Amino acid sequence: MKYGELKWTEVEAIDKRKVVLLPIAALEQHGHHMPMLTDTFIATKIAQRAEAAMKDDVLLMPTFWVGSSNHHLAFPGTISLDNSVYTRVLKQILHCLIAAGFHRIFLLNGHGGNVVPADQAIYEVALEREDLTDLWLVMSSYWTLAGSAMTDLPVMETRALTHACEYETSMVLALRPELVDMAKARGPQATFFSDYFVPDASRPSRVHSPRLFHRVSKTGAFGSPELASPEKGAALLQTIADEVVAFLKEFAQWPPLEPG
Amino acid sequence: MKYGELKWTEVEAIDKRKVVLLPIAALEQHGHHMPMLTDTFIATKIAQRAEAAMKDDVLLMPTFWVGSSNHHLAFPGTISLDNSVYTRVLKQILHCLIAAGFHRIFLLNGHGGNVVPADQAIYEVALEREDLTDLWLVMSSYWTLAGSAMTDLPVMETRALTHACEYETSMVLALRPELVDMAKARGPQATFFSDYFVPDASRPSRVHSPRLFHRVSKTGAFGSPELASPEKGAALLQTIADEVVAFLKEFAQWPPLEPG
Amino acid sequence: MKYGELKWTEVEAIDKRKVVLLPIAALEQHGHHMPMLTDTFIATKIAQRAEAAMKDDVLLMPTFWVGSSNHHLAFPGTISLDNSVYTRVLKQILHCLIAAGFHRIFLLNGHGGNVVPADQAIYEVALEREDLTDLWLVMSSYWTLAGSAMTDLPVMETRALTHACEYETSMVLALRPELVDMAKARGPQATFFSDYFVPDASRPSRVHSPRLFHRVSKTGAFGSPELASPEKGAALLQTIADEVVAFLKEFAQWPPLEPG
Amino acid sequence: MKYGELKWTEVEAIDKRKVVLLPIAALEQHGHHMPMLTDTFIATKIAQRAEAAMKDDVLLMPTFWVGSSNHHLAFPGTISLDNSVYTRVLKQILHCLIAAGFHRIFLLNGHGGNVVPADQAIYEVALEREDLTDLWLVMSSYWTLAGSAMTDLPVMETRALTHACEYETSMVLALRPELVDMAKARGPQATFFSDYFVPDASRPSRVHSPRLFHRVSKTGAFGSPELASPEKGAALLQTIADEVVAFLKEFAQWPPLEPG
Amino acid sequence: MKYGELKWTEVEAIDKRKVVLLPIAALEQHGHHMPMLTDTFIATKIAQRAEAAMKDDVLLMPTFWVGSSNHHLAFPGTISLDNSVYTRVLKQILHCLIAAGFHRIFLLNGHGGNVVPADQAIYEVALEREDLTDLWLVMSSYWTLAGSAMTDLPVMETRALTHACEYETSMVLALRPELVDMAKARGPQATFFSDYFVPDASRPSRVHSPRLFHRVSKTGAFGSPELASPEKGAALLQTIADEVVAFLKEFAQWPPLEPG
Amino acid sequence: MKYGELKWTEVEAIDKRKVVLLPIAALEQHGHHMPMLTDTFIATKIAQRAEAAMKDDVLLMPTFWVGSSNHHLAFPGTISLDNSVYTRVLKQILHCLIAAGFHRIFLLNGHGGNVVPADQAIYEVALEREDLTDLWLVMSSYWTLAGSAMTDLPVMETRALTHACEYETSMVLALRPELVDMAKARGPQATFFSDYFVPDASRPSRVHSPRLFHRVSKTGAFGSPELASPEKGAALLQTIADEVVAFLKEFAQWPPLEPG
Repeated sequence: MKYGELKWTEVEAIDKRKVVLLPIAALEQHGHHMPMLTDTFIATKIAQRAEAAMKDDVLLMPTFWVGSSNHHLAFPGTISLDNSVYTRVLKQILHCLIAAGFHRIFLLNGHGGNVVPADQAIYEVALEREDLTDLWLVMSSYWTLAGSAMTDLPVMETRALTHACEYETSMVLALRPELVDMAKARGPQATFFSDYFVPDASRPSRVHSPRLFHRVSKTGAFGSPELASPEKGAALLQTIADEVVAFLKEFAQWPPLEPG
Repeated sequence: MKYGELKWTEVEAIDKRKVVLLPIAALEQHGHHMPMLTDTFIATKIAQRAEAAMKDDVLLMPTFWVGSSNHHLAFPGTISLDNSVYTRVLKQILHCLIAAGFHRIFLLNGHGGNVVPADQAIYEVALEREDLTDLWLVMSSYWTLAGSAMTDLPVMETRALTHACEYETSMVLALRPELVDMAKARGPQATFFSDYFVPDASRPSRVHSPRLFHRVSKTGAFGSPELASPEKGAALLQTIADEVVAFLKEFAQWPPLEPG
Repeated sequence: MKYGELKWTEVEAIDKRKVVLLPIAALEQHGHHMPMLTDTFIATKIAQRAEAAMKDDVLLMPTFWVGSSNHHLAFPGTISLDNSVYTRVLKQILHCLIAAGFHRIFLLNGHGGNVVPADQAIYEVALEREDLTDLWLVMSSYWTLAGSAMTDLPVMETRALTHACEYETSMVLALRPELVDMAKARGPQATFFSDYFVPDASRPSRVHSPRLFHRVSKTGAFGSPELASPEKGAALLQTIADEVVAFLKEFAQWPPLEPG
Repeated sequence: MKYGELKWTEVEAIDKRKVVLLPIAALEQHGHHMPMLTDTFIATKIAQRAEAAMKDDVLLMPTFWVGSSNHHLAFPGTISLDNSVYTRVLKQILHCLIAAGFHRIFLLNGHGGNVVPADQAIYEVALEREDLTDLWLVMSSYWTLAGSAMTDLPVMETRALTHACEYETSMVLALRPELVDMAKARGPQATFFSDYFVPDASRPSRVHSPRLFHRVSKTGAFGSPELASPEKGAALLQTIADEVVAFLKEFAQWPPLEPG
Repeated sequence: MKYGELKWTEVEAIDKRKVVLLPIAALEQHGHHMPMLTDTFIATKIAQRAEAAMKDDVLLMPTFWVGSSNHHLAFPGTISLDNSVYTRVLKQILHCLIAAGFHRIFLLNGHGGNVVPADQAIYEVALEREDLTDLWLVMSSYWTLAGSAMTDLPVMETRALTHACEYETSMVLALRPELVDMAKARGPQATFFSDYFVPDASRPSRVHSPRLFHRVSKTGAFGSPELASPEKGAALLQTIADEVVAFLKEFAQWPPLEPG
Repeated sequence: MKYGELKWTEVEAIDKRKVVLLPIAALEQHGHHMPMLTDTFIATKIAQRAEAAMKDDVLLMPTFWVGSSNHHLAFPGTISLDNSVYTRVLKQILHCLIAAGFHRIFLLNGHGGNVVPADQAIYEVALEREDLTDLWLVMSSYWTLAGSAMTDLPVMETRALTHACEYETSMVLALRPELVDMAKARGPQATFFSDYFVPDASRPSRVHSPRLFHRVSKTGAFGSPELASPEKGAALLQTIADEVVAFLKEFAQWPPLEPG
């Protein structure tokens, strides 16, 4: 079901155990070769497929397309909210949903910069609604949820989703090929100096450090976007949507937590 | 042009005199008979038509679909931001656009509750960017911009757009008829007691007073939605889009203000 | 009655249906010929006359003389609060009055820049005190409330109150003639280029755009202040006070809203 | 000079070494016998006398009549700003004055609750305008500035100004006798248990602890208001005004600080 | 008892009438001759001695070592919180203690800059927990609490504790002599020009004015640090600790306030 | 070197390439058997060992002992800052260090709840000081930095550090055995129902969801604290300190990032 197509009287009457699915994404630079709505295109498509597969159990909201992308602002065109504003926006959306009676909400994330402020949002709302023992606020980035299923696809040549990379480029090639300029698909060859901190996130870092994107990539891309193909993209989208559906099916049944 | 389909290098290269068009709307209750995304459907369609008519001169952004609708929260399902958060969101979007070099930005509004916080946003940004003498930040609700052109349409039977009324219902009938339940299209008969304050906005008020919607309408609708028809809606959409285009054509040529 | 001359025990005992009348104004530049307290002088006088006419039914508060005038700050001397601070101040004053038991409060406004933040204040307080079904928070600028009664006065030569104009100058000539320098009473001749946006507010605009005052007037005045006279001012003050009294008499009887 | 009676062009031209005098006061309960504007009446009168004595050197602003009085809110009628809002208001007023070129500003305080947030305001503004080496932001409560001159007056029978006490009551008897009900002039007999903390401030405390007024006085008064007389009030007002003038004369000559 | 060495089950079981003792201090410049943790060393030692003397009745918290020291930031090394953040930190600590059941809390202050924001913190918490009639939130700087006992010590040669002065230097000489460089112990000779304002606080001022430390002392010290000795420091620490203990013994017995 | 033992003149003169090491921890419930300062004891000890090993290259700050622990507040005694306040505190500390000239700062974290707000702090400061191309703000929790080195220790029986678990209990047994009550060392047996979300963090989760601690553990502990021993603790502390030192040695040499 599409949340926004309901009338308020339908919201009032609906079974509140259904999962509300809110895709969160971004409008930010994605290298010389990709459109700024890349994350929004991808997250929206995955969410739509999940909704299509679970029409009766999922209420799909419109994608919240502005993200927390201040570290990309040196590239003109990026639209971004500060972390603190982004957190407040998500909190107010969540509080509205909870006030309407929903208690099983999933934020499907399509942009890395959203993780910290979205975590903060669900944490603060959980504290503010500590009175609700059956409230489940869950957030996951699709690359975390689908994790190894994505990277284990035989067609993929690089080992991690980073930014405007083989993975993202492939998916936009599958979705909106006319917006991709493969002739300009170039990211830097990673030449980082440390085993502790990997700025392009192609491996996990052992320490956290903020990365202003223009300090780490001249084009704004990472990974090996030149390896992208629409076939890879189609396979990725299918795999990710399947993983999201598998999670949502389980999530729809989660009981309240019981202290051990 | 669609703003979000551009690459950052295209934004960098583009002529910055073009108008950026940001539709702002809402996801809120619209009576027993209309979907919660009503304002978003309408504002998006108008904006798309304007962009289609002026492809080279307008950069259309995605519709910002969450509005300032706290006065509708008593009806379950409404998603809303506080005015102060809403203002901050618009300000940060505007600051990003200005930092990218744009200086001619139009917020096309589709929801009454957005007027005050959007006015505040453009006011504060104008002060913060007082250094820019050629900056034009403009906001208008489509019913203000298209004003008499709408109400003068011979087909229209009521005299003002209010909420989930003959006007809005007609337009959604034209756009998404499957989401409208005309059998339940009922708003209250206005029986207000004062010439100074008209809660349903069917005439101008001489004093301002906040109206919590559930205090003024049991269904959440106003006006006479039962008078709606898809034909009226098509005429309205055409008229409004024409008015917006007429404004945008003039706006694209506005010079900086010169003090007299 | 003067609110501040009461003892707290008198406030406790008083009939809470009385109207609390709070004049809000400004201390800001008013051209080469008028004192910075212009708006405060005018709003205070109107409010005093209304109180004098309705002593038993109105509680007059001291004029809140600082306004939201950041768009005038380029002219030295102006004292102004940011919109967000101004809103918070009004909200806290309103909450104190409501906590004391008052539920019929009228903000009589004398400065255009206060409209947006005052609207926001009464909106937010109404939401925060949604529990009170008989709460009436009302705001009006005297030129909106008295509207056509002012402009229809045969003596007036221009068609709208703007800023430091024929209207305001006449009223200060009637109240504090020694503070007006008619030899310097000059505003710009409006030479605006658009039918959509009228910066001096001499006609309604179809779009909103913030106006930094030094971008639209070198002297800081508008309208035709050279046409002002004390006789016009006396007529205006009388007319406006009569209109305010007429409203207050009706307002004092307003019942709670009933949803239709 | 009255600051608000000037035109902006006069502010621009004026010698900025003059002292700007801003009286800050309150509208709050003052016992069973005194009007809520007590602090405003007193501070305004003192400030007016100082201005009258130093017309050429002092710019008197209107009294900011709302204070920080949340600890009095249990008595209905009190109007109060939170400390944080009060601080922000004073800061914005100070920043406007400084932007206009003034650098010698005196806040004459008439209400104890304002001390902490006013101190915070001048502290924060001083830090924010650290670039100005000749900026003097000074605040004093009249009972601190006039200190021993007040309590040493032979006519006074109690040893300290507290609240709605012999001192304040005498001054309002001198200014607005019709608003004082001496038949109800009663404050509690201080029966406090500690040498460290004196809630009625009749002696200095060695520790700070907030006092909610309704926890320490049933009437809302302190001291011995029944000892008040208009003659005492006249003597106090004269003494305080003289002390303020003496300070302002010195203050008008203060050089910038030089580090030793 | 050391608060942080308890288990939560012990906190739950403990008699909540015990006094919680929270030392607050600073890490800021202390002249050419003293370490930046000077205030923390002193406040911690005094608090430890008080706890040692009253083990059963006092719960000693770790010293909050960051203070409000923005007026020292021109000297590199100083770590400081804005007043507003500092106030919020103290408030949240106090709210946690109160939520755990404690209602007798003493903030022992070791840094002058903390007084205003700490006063604000206890004031705001007292208002927010107005429901608790037996709540005692008390703050005192050790030089205010021990006041004359310190300055009356025959060994002391100067008449007031100021900053990095004879008093503070003596105490650090007693505690951490290896961190003091007496060869560089120099403060300015006070040569202030006014009886109203004494920037080095060696006498009380009659007016308040913020002092940016680099505007009043080149070294960052005040007073006569060259007069310091470890013997003086030992005597001071003993005297102050005795005074704190005397107060805490009384404080542990304070009844709720009763309005007179 | 101990940062706080320096004089400001020493800070001014010091080589700013040195690493500033700020341990951040918590004061919060740690089950029935462990003291509330557990995280502070551990983080402080690790940091002290690192400083001892690299005296010339590291400036050790005092441990910031209050953490972001609101999810533990249902257990009395916990002291916590909201995430937003915690972020602001860290930001202001970082800004002070940067203003003093330091540009290589490491936050060594000892409490899981601090990760999100500390990440936000370093992110925001990096954006605010984008002008500094050689600024390195790094944060890591010791269990992330030392990761496999800890869990690979042959003595350890469980596979992950969680909370008040075999790992933490062992380290406090090594440091402050008198504060541990092994008779009460009990955590819940994990009986969670999902492969996606592991509330006790004993394996990575594929989705994020806030966990209020009292919803997942009755004692407040996790893991198998009954398996703890001082020998394990000594081995852990040694291993972790070695890993921190290894990182710091590399960190001290990191060059500025160069975009690829």
